[in-house]
Amino acid sequence: MPSPQGFVGTTANLGLKEGADDFAVVASSAPTTSAAVFTRSRFAGASVVINREADLSAFRGMVTISKNANVATGEEGRANALEVRRLAAELVGCRPEELLVASTGVIGVQYPMDLLRSSLGTLAGTVGPLDADGFAAAGAAIMTTDTHPKVETRAVGAATLTGVAKGVGMIEPNMATMLAYFFTDAAVPAADLDAIFRRVVDRTFNAVSIDTDTSTSDTAAVFANGLAGEVDLAAFEEALHDCALALVKQIASDGEGASKLISVTVAGARDDAQAKRVAKTIVNSPLVKTAVHGADPNWGRIAMAIGKCEDDLDIEPENVAIAFGGTRIYPGSVSPETLAGLSAYLQGSEVSIEVTLGIAEGAFTVYGCDLTEGYIRINADYTT
Amino acid sequence: MPSPQGFVGTTANLGLKEGADDFAVVASSAPTTSAAVFTRSRFAGASVVINREADLSAFRGMVTISKNANVATGEEGRANALEVRRLAAELVGCRPEELLVASTGVIGVQYPMDLLRSSLGTLAGTVGPLDADGFAAAGAAIMTTDTHPKVETRAVGAATLTGVAKGVGMIEPNMATMLAYFFTDAAVPAADLDAIFRRVVDRTFNAVSIDTDTSTSDTAAVFANGLAGEVDLAAFEEALHDCALALVKQIASDGEGASKLISVTVAGARDDAQAKRVAKTIVNSPLVKTAVHGADPNWGRIAMAIGKCEDDLDIEPENVAIAFGGTRIYPGSVSPETLAGLSAYLQGSEVSIEVTLGIAEGAFTVYGCDLTEGYIRINADYTT
Repeated sequence: MPSPQGFVGTTANLGLKEGADDFAVVASSAPTTSAAVFTRSRFAGASVVINREADLSAFRGMVTISKNANVATGEEGRANALEVRRLAAELVGCRPEELLVASTGVIGVQYPMDLLRSSLGTLAGTVGPLDADGFAAAGAAIMTTDTHPKVETRAVGAATLTGVAKGVGMIEPNMATMLAYFFTDAAVPAADLDAIFRRVVDRTFNAVSIDTDTSTSDTAAVFANGLAGEVDLAAFEEALHDCALALVKQIASDGEGASKLISVTVAGARDDAQAKRVAKTIVNSPLVKTAVHGADPNWGRIAMAIGKCEDDLDIEPENVAIAFGGTRIYPGSVSPETLAGLSAYLQGSEVSIEVTLGIAEGAFTVYGCDLTEGYIRINADYTT
Repeated sequence: MPSPQGFVGTTANLGLKEGADDFAVVASSAPTTSAAVFTRSRFAGASVVINREADLSAFRGMVTISKNANVATGEEGRANALEVRRLAAELVGCRPEELLVASTGVIGVQYPMDLLRSSLGTLAGTVGPLDADGFAAAGAAIMTTDTHPKVETRAVGAATLTGVAKGVGMIEPNMATMLAYFFTDAAVPAADLDAIFRRVVDRTFNAVSIDTDTSTSDTAAVFANGLAGEVDLAAFEEALHDCALALVKQIASDGEGASKLISVTVAGARDDAQAKRVAKTIVNSPLVKTAVHGADPNWGRIAMAIGKCEDDLDIEPENVAIAFGGTRIYPGSVSPETLAGLSAYLQGSEVSIEVTLGIAEGAFTVYGCDLTEGYIRINADYTT
């Protein structure tokens, strides 16, 4: 697979992580269009606040610090984020406000600025054009408790699209964050890019939930420098969706302590919004998540979770159907053989739950993971 | 402690549980006023549906079956619930529609009616006036995975109020249910009883959350037969609140796998509703629950949880303060000694988290428990 043309950058260990890169900067040398979305948290970090003040359609790339979220750090944290952005922009040769800045890790601790300044001062010679290995290195540098880097590449006409993401993990042991960046040499007008990106994010990153908790630093962005020329916009949207969905599945499978990817598809809803609401209620239910972990085809817990949508008065139990991996289990009676088959299916690493509400044509699929002792250990036992 | 006068009943093993009572009926021989609230689940069970059709102010008592929820059982399940109610009403000498019927346990399985009919037919001689031991036996008969019965008694003037409740636990391994019944010989007009009960439930049972999952069978009711005469209504409300709160704390401490009771008080909110919303977001956060389990005074996770109330645009991080057990940890810096003290505090069996939003005077307290490996084991590993 080729990589998108025209992107330069570097990764480095600035001394925050032990023995692994904790810094990445990637930016296009040519002008770009861009689009970006951020966490809606009321405790959004300094990086997110600064990005929101910039022109979201004019980012050339991103700089990311891993292992310190720079959240709840006040004016000093804001000044530090601006300085990191300025130093990184010097490295890749763009204006500071053309770099999206992101940070993930511990909350309420200031950056070690003396360390960052001296380390960043030594990196000028390491910046160069990024090939597939370079993007992979950026994917690794932004990881926290992810167990592997998440990188996906797709071709779109003559252009290439590469996405890197990090999942939801805890660090030291603080904040979970989802970061996702897409780099392409396709030419996409800014307004189209924004509309396409929001549609894709809604069906992919906004459809994944590990543990219902929302980070203070979630960020997703796409950077398009046009060096490969124009592309069919529908094909671009399809490639972006495909790339994002692959990253989402990687994030869900790699959720803290997760042993299984769970996808929940709700169809027959009043509209897509209702389908998404019901699907999220199911994929977020601790009782559903533990049932899947235990490989128990316990449709009663799914019925319970659907029932939690108490304001959806058009949901009637007698119109609802529930299936695992295409095999209906409610309503109707299930033979012991079918039940044994379902138990075997639930032993697999990917479990699909399908629900139809019998109301209208709305549909949505969401992604999550099972809830395991590993999640408890990561988040409770391994404390400072 | 005396017990409320005029209540008769019995408990029995009908063959659903192994070696423990799974049936309880309690009813006043004298006319009563009553009030009741039920789950808002769209998958509410047959019992809940039948109760909603009755006069909620004219229940004399309740009949409860444990270990089978009679949920998603269709017309047959409804007919069975009506028959159980009729047979139980014959036992205690009231009309069927004067008995509230409740059921908790496995979903989607019909009652073993032959067994229930023959067993209930043998119980006539066991029905008698209930003393404290009788109410305690009723509290034990309605348990599922509760580790102990939950019974509280309070005096109100010349009257007595006894409450029994069961918490949120799994059975075989299916549905969690909260049941709570209050019996009193105070005389309380039906309209007052309803208003008082709804206020109390909102501040107690509706303020407890074990795992965010909502049962299909949750039921709470109060039965007042007036045999002890009129009481001061404010004193009655205070006693009912006190009794309910004690039961709620027992339920939260006895949550599945729980090792700690967590109370979260949010003050300084725009109004009580906002305070409740923020408090529930905190007490339900898996990351907060695991931090408390790990005895880690991790205020960053509390800030994250507050931030999830993304539509509450008046919540500003710089106006928020966070404390554990009265010791402020955010904003400001905390000495190592204070941090050590907080860690020691979090080792205890009851942990209080206090948040002020700095907006106005709204306040609310909610109750929950930590999230432990025990929860996972109960709900995933111990499958059928």
